[in-house]
Amino acid sequence: MNKEAKTNYDIHPVLKQRWSPRAFAEKQVELEKIHRLFEAARWAPSNNNLQPWRFLIGFKGDETHNKIVSVLTEANAEWADKAPVLILVVGKKVNHKGDPNKLFSFDLAQATANMAFQATVDGINVRQITGLIPRKAFEVFAIHDLYGAVCTLAVGYPGDPDTLPNPLKKQEKAERTRNPIEDVVYTVKFGQKANIF
Amino acid sequence: MNKEAKTNYDIHPVLKQRWSPRAFAEKQVELEKIHRLFEAARWAPSNNNLQPWRFLIGFKGDETHNKIVSVLTEANAEWADKAPVLILVVGKKVNHKGDPNKLFSFDLAQATANMAFQATVDGINVRQITGLIPRKAFEVFAIHDLYGAVCTLAVGYPGDPDTLPNPLKKQEKAERTRNPIEDVVYTVKFGQKANIF
Repeated sequence: MNKEAKTNYDIHPVLKQRWSPRAFAEKQVELEKIHRLFEAARWAPSNNNLQPWRFLIGFKGDETHNKIVSVLTEANAEWADKAPVLILVVGKKVNHKGDPNKLFSFDLAQATANMAFQATVDGINVRQITGLIPRKAFEVFAIHDLYGAVCTLAVGYPGDPDTLPNPLKKQEKAERTRNPIEDVVYTVKFGQKANIF
Repeated sequence: MNKEAKTNYDIHPVLKQRWSPRAFAEKQVELEKIHRLFEAARWAPSNNNLQPWRFLIGFKGDETHNKIVSVLTEANAEWADKAPVLILVVGKKVNHKGDPNKLFSFDLAQATANMAFQATVDGINVRQITGLIPRKAFEVFAIHDLYGAVCTLAVGYPGDPDTLPNPLKKQEKAERTRNPIEDVVYTVKFGQKANIF
């Protein structure tokens, strides 16, 4: 299945190839690839270098994997349970002084974007799942209240889309689409298109 | 100046090389590189494929560049004014039905992470500036109130750190540091280190 982005301008191949599947192979991900995933997160930029990201990692069949599945919305739990690796991404909501870091979620996304990139380099896929129930995550993992649960990453080798339930199977095979870039790049004032394309 | 990340695990070279300088060369960035920057943003993942990102782009000397400088905090305005390209990143805070999209800032960060990556590939640098005054940005660019102003990107070719004012000059030359990854990867419960490193 070729899911490469159909781009108008020639970006780096890894950016074209990265996508967010729901179907994963059973094969477990090698620890060296997991190491690189976290090293990639580690070097993401963050506001004042606060590095607010924290991770809880589970491997298929272990306690943490089961717990992460239990905090997902039902629709996500169904397919994510089959992912060999699940990672809950949690962010510190305050800075060193205890003042609110409004950008913690922004910073976490930079880390997960780096992870998705490194995964693609390593031939594995990441789907970022924002459909989780934060209250449950807090209970199940005893998360400190200075932290916020933001998303879960499902990680693994590419799987067979036909193993997914029916509406998802179709989505998995569908062509990837994006808005035209010229519609969202403005100049002088909001909504006034920049004539640069 | 070698700013490559000193990694414990061997990640993709572009992830090692990406960093956030404040010094930029005067040379303007070619339009083809700007195109690739936005194409990279375009293919970022987003919650329900909402693609909440909008951009306002200014080139050194033009009206938008001046306006963007005017909405930055003083400390950022000083050096950012010299960046050949400034891009204000704005996000739609609601979905197609008008319901709040709490993840708009998370999604914007995925787009800007992709942009920083593609920039590095193209030999240019991006510094993401979160120090801006949103109220001013709304006024100056007549931004609709369903949108939020999140950050500004300074873009350009690498410059001479010695052109920066003194505290920043030192920061620019300092070694890049990050927390040890084993301190932030947990299992079973929050704070319990995963023994995978």
